[in-house]
Amino acid sequence: MPCSPPSTRAVPAKAPPRNALYAQSGGVTATINATAWGLIDEARRARRGGRPIGRIFAARNGILGVLREDLVDLSAESTAALAALRHTPGGAFGSCRYDLPPLPQGRVHYARIAEVFRAHGIGYFFYNGGNGSAETAQQLATILPDFGWPVISLAVPKTIDNDIVGSDVSPGFGSVAKFAATSLREASADLASMADSSTKVFVMEVMGRHTGWIAAACGLALPQGGDGPLLLLVPEITFDRRRFLEAVSARVARHGWCVVAVAEGLRLADGRRLTAAGGDGIPGHEQLGGVAPLLAAMLRRELRLKVHWSVLDYVQRAARHLASAVDVAQSEAVGHEALRLALAGHGNVMPVIRRDSDRPYRWHIEAAALETLMNRERKLPRRFLSRDGWRLSAAGRAYFSPLIRGEAVQPFADGLPVHARLRLRPLPRRLDSPWREPGRHKTGRKPR
Amino acid sequence: MPCSPPSTRAVPAKAPPRNALYAQSGGVTATINATAWGLIDEARRARRGGRPIGRIFAARNGILGVLREDLVDLSAESTAALAALRHTPGGAFGSCRYDLPPLPQGRVHYARIAEVFRAHGIGYFFYNGGNGSAETAQQLATILPDFGWPVISLAVPKTIDNDIVGSDVSPGFGSVAKFAATSLREASADLASMADSSTKVFVMEVMGRHTGWIAAACGLALPQGGDGPLLLLVPEITFDRRRFLEAVSARVARHGWCVVAVAEGLRLADGRRLTAAGGDGIPGHEQLGGVAPLLAAMLRRELRLKVHWSVLDYVQRAARHLASAVDVAQSEAVGHEALRLALAGHGNVMPVIRRDSDRPYRWHIEAAALETLMNRERKLPRRFLSRDGWRLSAAGRAYFSPLIRGEAVQPFADGLPVHARLRLRPLPRRLDSPWREPGRHKTGRKPR
Repeated sequence: MPCSPPSTRAVPAKAPPRNALYAQSGGVTATINATAWGLIDEARRARRGGRPIGRIFAARNGILGVLREDLVDLSAESTAALAALRHTPGGAFGSCRYDLPPLPQGRVHYARIAEVFRAHGIGYFFYNGGNGSAETAQQLATILPDFGWPVISLAVPKTIDNDIVGSDVSPGFGSVAKFAATSLREASADLASMADSSTKVFVMEVMGRHTGWIAAACGLALPQGGDGPLLLLVPEITFDRRRFLEAVSARVARHGWCVVAVAEGLRLADGRRLTAAGGDGIPGHEQLGGVAPLLAAMLRRELRLKVHWSVLDYVQRAARHLASAVDVAQSEAVGHEALRLALAGHGNVMPVIRRDSDRPYRWHIEAAALETLMNRERKLPRRFLSRDGWRLSAAGRAYFSPLIRGEAVQPFADGLPVHARLRLRPLPRRLDSPWREPGRHKTGRKPR
Repeated sequence: MPCSPPSTRAVPAKAPPRNALYAQSGGVTATINATAWGLIDEARRARRGGRPIGRIFAARNGILGVLREDLVDLSAESTAALAALRHTPGGAFGSCRYDLPPLPQGRVHYARIAEVFRAHGIGYFFYNGGNGSAETAQQLATILPDFGWPVISLAVPKTIDNDIVGSDVSPGFGSVAKFAATSLREASADLASMADSSTKVFVMEVMGRHTGWIAAACGLALPQGGDGPLLLLVPEITFDRRRFLEAVSARVARHGWCVVAVAEGLRLADGRRLTAAGGDGIPGHEQLGGVAPLLAAMLRRELRLKVHWSVLDYVQRAARHLASAVDVAQSEAVGHEALRLALAGHGNVMPVIRRDSDRPYRWHIEAAALETLMNRERKLPRRFLSRDGWRLSAAGRAYFSPLIRGEAVQPFADGLPVHARLRLRPLPRRLDSPWREPGRHKTGRKPR
């Protein structure tokens, strides 16, 4: 439950029940749709219970769908189809990489959004995303009143990057951590059996442009203690080629093999990334990937070892088949809580997760003011790694371990996972004019 | 049940119960240990039932462990630990990439093996591997009698490559197919949600140096029919750059996105592989990997699309957490059957899987003579793909679909899969001299 909600927006006095709009933003996760389900389920219950809420809509492709008046009517979906969102990866309504320009450049955008909201009677807006998306929700909460349509606008957390400030964990992270750690444990068993006469090192690249949360979680793959044959490489610790080669060499000598979990954003002492393959031309927005083959080539050349490598990319963040039950529960819970906060009149906030204890893992949800967290980034604390930086510390284990607990239910048919099949019936358009983007403003704060 | 076993070797008349030796060879799989369990379980039952079988040993690291007299005593393991092999990926006893030289060069090898077998009373030898390992089993069956120690030597099938001639499927393949198809289905859901304003193509590289079995199985990821947004690239079909770019472009135009499953061994018209990264210096034995980033760069450059890519590598073949129940059942069954065949006196064979019907999927096991299958390679039939080569045909679907059915049980603890923990107690050495490799004969027919 929220305590001391940081912001409350007055409701227009004689308004009819306001409709609610849900949208997804940024890189998706294996559990973002569980959040959608939690929010929709809560809204349907509230409506049936006579609370002041009207219909529930979703925007296609995030805020772009709002600008384009491309909305879908969730009342056209069956409960079974909606409930299946709990075990469907990706963003069922489409996501986007799009930041609203600030005022005054964004004047036409906010005017358009106010127009769309007014046309469809939307009084609650929920933007399911990360730090960047939180700013969009905050912009609508604070700017739309000036355009004559105040709205209760909330951000709902989601990101595999686990970099949302003020939340113990970001919904979506626990599942990618579970999949990555499991994959590394399994690959370690494979490597250990090959190492005598063949491959001696396996390098697994995980996501993490700026932070090493996922790479660090891979430290759970092997049991605790000692200089085990597992090295973690995170962007928070400058990559030192000589130290790395020595560490691998020592572990291969001692154990016969070594696995490496590396975050895509690994950096050199001068701040440059080890590799930046296939940039999209926007400075600072390189599309990363490929640090694993680079390290593999280095190990082959310098240590004359046979090396295998893997780049998980989307496979890791879409792996709903191995989602963490804790993560799915948290993802669903923030959806429920977001709707409750909105109905209680609390806008301009994000429901975040607070940890009460490690063992047993206990947590609750609080409302955090968007201003306190938007566009900030939570780095991996140095104390979560051992002194030498190669493995998890006890504190790191205590942090990560509960987040990957439990295996969330995933129905299968014919050997493959079953995903939600929504009708996505378009809401009839009420505006005469289509949206035209003024100039080209299309950033994508964090292109994946 | 075997019908008309192709070869029978006479048992020395007054021999004591002969001990059995099991070993693993070549690239491991998520289910090779299920085969180990099946064989060990059958052997223990047979022994308790008074059949002429003594103790059960395993060699560390395949045939290398035999040469080194590096054996473990399986009677030191608890039944619970052994049964846990059913859900443990990798090779629990270690594998190897090592081919015995033929005679006369291999004279010292065969003499050594006969010496080790005699010292430990080994009368049954089971070599769990692929086409190459079958030759080793055949060599021992046919050559050891000349060294005074006839042995009933069998090959037991295993390979994710699915290229064993004469077997409907190779144990281990169904699970990697299930994991790869599942991952592509999940990543497709992710991509579909990003495509409007961000990534439009996802390229997933799977194993398959010479054959496209795994890549083709990825065709199950999306529903059947039409020119769906999924392209399959296999080594059996020459890569045509222009056709590929056109096919991707058409699908992105039509669906907004496209996923590509590509086998690592994709080839150009002149027979060269698209890429051969990090060769180990042995001609023809390049360590592949990296065709996905190459295709991704091509798509970015030529079509100006945002592309993501993944290389699954060991992660795919170790993914026991998502093993096919059919595959685990078959893997265990060939272990049981190998032991039964041996006790019935049938050496120089491999138990292989024969398909009786597609729907329902029915199969049985037969014994195939090693001479008929060793060192051969089964290619993906062209008829399993559509006429344009981009997707599965109905025949392909009928073949692959049953192999990935069912989700095999995987116990978890603390959010991570639980694997067997064997004691691997060394069998006391009985020979005075350690093994010394004469010269350097260490190939690795198929290095991974």
